[in-house]
Amino acid sequence: MIGIDIGGTNTMFGIVDARGTILDSGSIKTGDYPEIDGYVTALAEGLQGIIQQVGGKEMIKGIGVGAPMGNFFSGCIERAANLPWKGIIPFTQLISDKTGGIPAAITNDVNAAAMGEMAYGAARGLKDFIMIALGTGVGSGIVIGGNLVYGHDGFAGELGHVIMRRENGRMCGCGRAGCLEAYTSATGVARTAKELLETRTEDSLLRNLDPEKITSKDVYEAAIQGDKLSIEIFEMTGEILGEAFADFIAFSSPEAIILFGGLTKAGDLILNPIQRSMDKNVLYAYKGKIKLVFSQLKESDAAILGASALGWEAK
Amino acid sequence: MIGIDIGGTNTMFGIVDARGTILDSGSIKTGDYPEIDGYVTALAEGLQGIIQQVGGKEMIKGIGVGAPMGNFFSGCIERAANLPWKGIIPFTQLISDKTGGIPAAITNDVNAAAMGEMAYGAARGLKDFIMIALGTGVGSGIVIGGNLVYGHDGFAGELGHVIMRRENGRMCGCGRAGCLEAYTSATGVARTAKELLETRTEDSLLRNLDPEKITSKDVYEAAIQGDKLSIEIFEMTGEILGEAFADFIAFSSPEAIILFGGLTKAGDLILNPIQRSMDKNVLYAYKGKIKLVFSQLKESDAAILGASALGWEAK
Repeated sequence: MIGIDIGGTNTMFGIVDARGTILDSGSIKTGDYPEIDGYVTALAEGLQGIIQQVGGKEMIKGIGVGAPMGNFFSGCIERAANLPWKGIIPFTQLISDKTGGIPAAITNDVNAAAMGEMAYGAARGLKDFIMIALGTGVGSGIVIGGNLVYGHDGFAGELGHVIMRRENGRMCGCGRAGCLEAYTSATGVARTAKELLETRTEDSLLRNLDPEKITSKDVYEAAIQGDKLSIEIFEMTGEILGEAFADFIAFSSPEAIILFGGLTKAGDLILNPIQRSMDKNVLYAYKGKIKLVFSQLKESDAAILGASALGWEAK
Repeated sequence: MIGIDIGGTNTMFGIVDARGTILDSGSIKTGDYPEIDGYVTALAEGLQGIIQQVGGKEMIKGIGVGAPMGNFFSGCIERAANLPWKGIIPFTQLISDKTGGIPAAITNDVNAAAMGEMAYGAARGLKDFIMIALGTGVGSGIVIGGNLVYGHDGFAGELGHVIMRRENGRMCGCGRAGCLEAYTSATGVARTAKELLETRTEDSLLRNLDPEKITSKDVYEAAIQGDKLSIEIFEMTGEILGEAFADFIAFSSPEAIILFGGLTKAGDLILNPIQRSMDKNVLYAYKGKIKLVFSQLKESDAAILGASALGWEAK
C-alpha cells in the first residue's frame, strides 16, 4: 500500500506493508510546483523509484492520499487554501493515471490519521472514536461503527469550528467567532498567552519574550520550568477542550477520544486539564466511560501510515 | 412487522405492512402495570389479537420497540426515569418469549422515529440526517451512512444536552446548566415566556395567564394572534436551535435536519427563525447545503411506524 501525505510545505510518501512497517519513503516540496500537472509528474516519479524497489506496481494494492480538503466521494482536492493549486483538482484520477492505474482514494489529513490510528495505533480494535488534531488549527476525524464519517458531501468532522464562546468570542480564521480552534490550536494557545500577559500583572517567564512572537512551544517550556502563568494557559486550553469533548460525546458516544498534533507534546500539562474538564462537563450517562489518550503513532510516520491505511478503500 | 411505542403514559402498538400502512393497532396504559411481568403479559395479549387478525405469528417478521433508554445493543430498557420499572429490564427477551419467539429489537423513541422517517417519511432516500424531537424534552436520532448512530454503549445522540449557554445557563433536568433542552423544549419555551414576562414591561396576551401555568401552546396561540412578545419567544427559541444545528452540521454534515414533536405545530413561527439562525451560524463550507424540514409522518402514526421500521433489524 502507498501512502501520500500532502501538506502545504512538504509532500511525504511511502510504501507500507500490512503490519504498518514503512518499507521505503520519500518526499518532495509541495510549493515547488505551482501547476498541478508538474506536481503529479514529480510525485509519480518519486513513487516509481519505491514501486520498483518492492517489485513493481503489481505488488501495490492501492494508493491512499491525505490532503487538506481532500473529498473521499469525489476524489478531488476542493479549493484548499494552503495548497498552490486553485479550484477543484481531480487528484485520485491524476495520480492513478500517472502510476499505470493503481487505484487511489483521498480524504483530508485528519481523517487519514484516524484511519492510521485504527489500523496501527491507539484505536486498534475500536469502532467508535474521535481523533482530534491539535496543531496550527484544530482538525477532527470521526469514526462510527468502524467507518469514517464523511457526511453527505464528504466534509463532515469540522469539530475545530464548533462554537465554544458565543459572547465576545475570539475571531477565527473561518470568519466566525468563538470557534474551538481559536482557543485550543497551537496558535490559540499563543493568543491566550498574549491575552493573559496583557490583562494580568503577575510575573512570568513569558514576560522575557516578545508577546507578538510567543509560540505554544514557549508556553510549554516555561510551564515545565514551573511558570504558573504558563501552566494556567494549558489549564484554560484544556478546560475548553474538555467542554467541547463533553458535547462531542453526547453526539456519538465514542469509546475513546484520541489526541495528536504538536500540542500533545505538552503531555500531562494538557491531558490532565482536559480530562478534569471532560469529567466535570460530560452528561452523567457517559461519565467514566470514555477514554482520553494520545496517538500511538510516531509523528514522523503517522502521516504516511494514515494515508496508506486509506489505500484499502481505493477501488 | 410489529411496532411498539412505550411512553410514560401510554403504550401503543400496531401491525405495519412493508409500505408503511398500519393494518391494525391498539394500546394499553403503561402506568397500570407497576411490575414488568404484568405489563409484558398485558402487552402480549394485546398483540395476540392483532397477530391473529393478520394470519398468525408466521406472518410477522419482527417486533420493533421504541422506549425511553432502550438500548439497541443489550435489548434492555436501562433505568428509564419515566417508566414504572426500576433497574435494567431485558425487554426484547421478555416480549419475544411471550410472543412465541418473534425476534425483537429496541432503541429509544427518537431513534425509532428516525427509522420511521427513513422508511416512510421525510428521510426516504437519505443516508445522512439528524432527527430532532422538540417535545417535553429535546431528543435526537442521528443517521450516518444509512445507519443509526448508537455509539459504543448504545446511548449516542443526546443532542438535547449539548451546552448552549456556558455562562448563567438555565438549570437542566440532567443536573447541569445551559443545555439545549432547557431552552428549546416545550418546557423551555414556557420558561422563556415566564422569564420575559418578569424582565420586560410591554403588554402581551400572555399577561392574562398565570405565568406559572403558561405552556408552549399558550405562547403559540398568542403568537398567531400577532402577540409580539410571543413571536419573540419563538424567535429566541429558533435562534438557539439554529446555533446548535450549525454545530451539529460541523460534526456529521447531514443532508437534512428533520424536526418533529409538539413544538413543530408552531410551523413557520419556529421554522423560520431556526433557518435564519442556522444560515447565520453555519460554517461557510456547509452554507445552503443542509435542508431543514418537518417530519412527514402523521403524529398519531409516527411512533408505531418508527418502532416497526426497527423491526427489520430484529434477529
